[in-house]
Amino acid sequence: MVRFQPIYDIAELCSRKGLTQAILCPGSRCAPLTLAFARHPEITTRTFSDERSAGFVALGIAQQKKAPAIVVCTSGSAAYNLAPAVAEAWFSETPLIIFTADRPAEWIAQHDGQTIHQPEIFGKHVKKSFQLPQEYEHADSQWAINRMVNEAINLSFQEPKGPVHINAPFREPLYPPKGEAISYSDSVRVMDEYTSPFALSEEQKKKLNTEWRSYHNILIVAGQHEADQELTEALSHFFLRHNIPVAGDIISNLHGIEKVVRHADTFLGQASADVKKTLRPDLLITFGKSIISKNLKQFLRKYSPKVHWHIQPAGIVADTFQSITNVFNTTPANFFRFLGSIPNSESFENQKQNNFNKLWEVEERRAIRTLEEFFPQDEFAELELVHTIMQSLPDNCNLHLANSMSVRYSNVIGLIAKQKNIQVYANRGTSGIDGCTSTAIGHSLSNERPNILITGDVAFFYDRNAFWHNYSLSNLRIVLLNNHGGVIFKMIDGPGSLPEADEYFVTRQRLTAKKLCEEFGFDHLRLDNKRKVKNLVKDFFEFDGKTKILEIETDTLINKIIFDILKEKTKKSYEL
Amino acid sequence: MVRFQPIYDIAELCSRKGLTQAILCPGSRCAPLTLAFARHPEITTRTFSDERSAGFVALGIAQQKKAPAIVVCTSGSAAYNLAPAVAEAWFSETPLIIFTADRPAEWIAQHDGQTIHQPEIFGKHVKKSFQLPQEYEHADSQWAINRMVNEAINLSFQEPKGPVHINAPFREPLYPPKGEAISYSDSVRVMDEYTSPFALSEEQKKKLNTEWRSYHNILIVAGQHEADQELTEALSHFFLRHNIPVAGDIISNLHGIEKVVRHADTFLGQASADVKKTLRPDLLITFGKSIISKNLKQFLRKYSPKVHWHIQPAGIVADTFQSITNVFNTTPANFFRFLGSIPNSESFENQKQNNFNKLWEVEERRAIRTLEEFFPQDEFAELELVHTIMQSLPDNCNLHLANSMSVRYSNVIGLIAKQKNIQVYANRGTSGIDGCTSTAIGHSLSNERPNILITGDVAFFYDRNAFWHNYSLSNLRIVLLNNHGGVIFKMIDGPGSLPEADEYFVTRQRLTAKKLCEEFGFDHLRLDNKRKVKNLVKDFFEFDGKTKILEIETDTLINKIIFDILKEKTKKSYEL
Repeated sequence: MVRFQPIYDIAELCSRKGLTQAILCPGSRCAPLTLAFARHPEITTRTFSDERSAGFVALGIAQQKKAPAIVVCTSGSAAYNLAPAVAEAWFSETPLIIFTADRPAEWIAQHDGQTIHQPEIFGKHVKKSFQLPQEYEHADSQWAINRMVNEAINLSFQEPKGPVHINAPFREPLYPPKGEAISYSDSVRVMDEYTSPFALSEEQKKKLNTEWRSYHNILIVAGQHEADQELTEALSHFFLRHNIPVAGDIISNLHGIEKVVRHADTFLGQASADVKKTLRPDLLITFGKSIISKNLKQFLRKYSPKVHWHIQPAGIVADTFQSITNVFNTTPANFFRFLGSIPNSESFENQKQNNFNKLWEVEERRAIRTLEEFFPQDEFAELELVHTIMQSLPDNCNLHLANSMSVRYSNVIGLIAKQKNIQVYANRGTSGIDGCTSTAIGHSLSNERPNILITGDVAFFYDRNAFWHNYSLSNLRIVLLNNHGGVIFKMIDGPGSLPEADEYFVTRQRLTAKKLCEEFGFDHLRLDNKRKVKNLVKDFFEFDGKTKILEIETDTLINKIIFDILKEKTKKSYEL
Repeated sequence: MVRFQPIYDIAELCSRKGLTQAILCPGSRCAPLTLAFARHPEITTRTFSDERSAGFVALGIAQQKKAPAIVVCTSGSAAYNLAPAVAEAWFSETPLIIFTADRPAEWIAQHDGQTIHQPEIFGKHVKKSFQLPQEYEHADSQWAINRMVNEAINLSFQEPKGPVHINAPFREPLYPPKGEAISYSDSVRVMDEYTSPFALSEEQKKKLNTEWRSYHNILIVAGQHEADQELTEALSHFFLRHNIPVAGDIISNLHGIEKVVRHADTFLGQASADVKKTLRPDLLITFGKSIISKNLKQFLRKYSPKVHWHIQPAGIVADTFQSITNVFNTTPANFFRFLGSIPNSESFENQKQNNFNKLWEVEERRAIRTLEEFFPQDEFAELELVHTIMQSLPDNCNLHLANSMSVRYSNVIGLIAKQKNIQVYANRGTSGIDGCTSTAIGHSLSNERPNILITGDVAFFYDRNAFWHNYSLSNLRIVLLNNHGGVIFKMIDGPGSLPEADEYFVTRQRLTAKKLCEEFGFDHLRLDNKRKVKNLVKDFFEFDGKTKILEIETDTLINKIIFDILKEKTKKSYEL
């Protein structure tokens, strides 16, 4: 047997289990895995030198492919540079298979260069951490390697999906003797796991049917959720039948449903306590992960429902609104398909539901009207550019929203049902700014659709090594809202008025994307005059093989003023 | 009491314990700590937006100031971006006090934005991880906060020094009410710890004196060690008296001692087994951390000493050469001062020691001669530029060596005793490329001396956010060896001849420093013709208020050939 055969066979196993995407970060210790994946005919490999970026690229690929992406890195601090992406994968429930090459265990902390304490290095941010055997002679070792990788991949697929870590210590020599070919064993054992469809049982359905009829004011709130055709259809049907308000952020990906309440954050931020009382649900049904809207969160915490059902196939539940009373271990699509199949309740009950729905509808319409009247402003600032861009999005594209103001602006604007098949992505697991661009690039590399990223300057330059690779990004478009600092710290209450605001919170930075575009051969569309908007946006959305960055430089104060005016107008809309 | 008084008083405590340097990464959750440090009159605060870079900047500051540097970051993945620097601090035994702000414990993993699992997040790479109380009303909480921070600082100072982690959960509101001033309590309790001088006991001295006389072939090997005047003097005196060879890498910082063996890596790479046998020590005495030289490591592992004494004040010992028999818990300066005070042994014994020393001296001289004859080469490549730069270094400067080829090249060249007071730094704790520039910048910011960094392109661009801040770096000079990839993978045996070498190991990258220099207003000195060397180097070392980058673009192959020629010439030197 070739010494590293059990390691080479990992690539074959990954392939047979349907994994096709690997990111290989350069290094020497990882050579056996690098070669195994690089030479495997069924696996697409790409290389990124900055592991921090590499991890997020893999995250984007996994999201896009809806399958675990493989990451391989060398020994030492490389693993720690992957950690921000691993944490995002953990909280966003994205499957990643992280292989960290290591020195043999006996050489750890013996001053032998490029070793850190790698076993369990990702702490609570992986579903499990495996330590591969470092000797391969014994048949049990070979079995263990196969078993662990099978288990790791199965785990990453299980709900809630997530990252797994495989630490792989390798003895030298790390490279095959000159001329030795690498082959993959035919007999690689695949251990498949057929996961539950997370269906409701007949008993649960019966109970649900009875209980559900006892509430009139029912509200559905969606947290972050990937675009899901099945769910969209189930919810649309459900809505048509029952007239129950469904509120969702832009990252809930429910904009395909016409009547979804998408401006809850806007109107709940200004509505009076009296209005809010009328909007209070008896029964709250939630699904998905975090929500962006602080106003919606605070509303639900304050105006607590009597009963709160949360739908989640598996895993520990986050009690974001402090009110969960029942968890349904099913998919939201299954759940709403069932509720949608229940005939409407008797007309009196139905009328009550209708009334409650109308209350939400009125608020939603009010917010839309305010927004429609709001644009254009005399001063063309970030919010308006986001508005313009979002209205100009092509159908069938991916919209990526960076933390922190970009995702908020976009959520204020929202997408509408006429815009077909726009999938929205944002790193809201940890809400970090550390990998927003890299994640979008992971998507760009693994699909043909236009990928549009809206980002602020701090997130953009933080993750600038996202561009430091040799792959073409002709389907990537970036809108860079450059206010030369962390404008969010001026937007939120608290730091804005402190003397330290500019230095320690906003943290002024001088860069623009000009030099970066020159470095990487990107088109740099600079929006320095509002009259140029139309042409620049047209050029921006032309897909002519080039990567394009549309940059607007604005003053923090202007952005704050305009945002405040919108709030003010929303408030006034209640006085008319 | 102002609600955050116990937190504000942390800054006062840090100050009273002699800490003067804090890096504050922007964020909202960390506001109470940010304000506490930013407003403290005795603490110098700086802000860096990319936490990965910020951690390494703090590392450099701590090394330069020989005191713990404080780092404050916000909640979420920020902490993980600090992890590479924390790991380097752990293995390089550099004291850091890492404050990670956090949400209140009950909100972790409840989808409330920017939270990850922060307690114990740095795993085995901190001396201890503290969790501060999140309520301050009870007197015991206030006591605990003070006690923990005292303990943390004391721990970071204790040998072996290192990083400590303090996770600090904060409840909203995070900002003081408008107009509320921050003050520091007079009564802040300081709990000081007087650490051991790590002296040898009389009994140990007696034993040492007796045992030491029983060996003739004694070799001293120094691992990485900070420049230490006391040690240099003790070793010089010891050497003059006993004529015992002392071998050290460039990072051992022993180049102030004229007769130190600094080319062991070069000659042990080519010397025959017969020569090596004569160089084998009976007694090996080591101190310091890791060594760069793979050849010296392999020599000592193969030609094992009978007895191996390792000098280390405290902590777990790394058995790099697989031969330790005694550990002396003292400082190397104490140890050699004592041995230097022992009168010379009787002349016959002394003669034997002399003979052994001469054997090492002969090899060292041979290597120096080969090196002297070697330059200049017809093809001016990286090694020659490093040679030129190292010969042109001003006295009283700091030389920073990036991983991975830069530190190797520099070690091959070495510094000589005539070059006064040059302190050498390199991140050899984890030997990562992730923060070499940032660490050098930490040094630049906290001392007035010239700081010269020699780096390769991969390390340089990996850590390019080191420049993303608002501080002047007029004493920083960077030599950028740009071969457009990780040349080390061509240098070492193994990957060089693989078909994957360029894509997955070297990882070609196209950037030069030109745009980066334009972005940050640095002088870009491009060495594109060997005749320009003299003028460019002269310009480079002129300190006229500007940051300067001297860049040479070379072909990997040329560098490899030239390195191979040197090896060949060293080998031939044994045939004459």
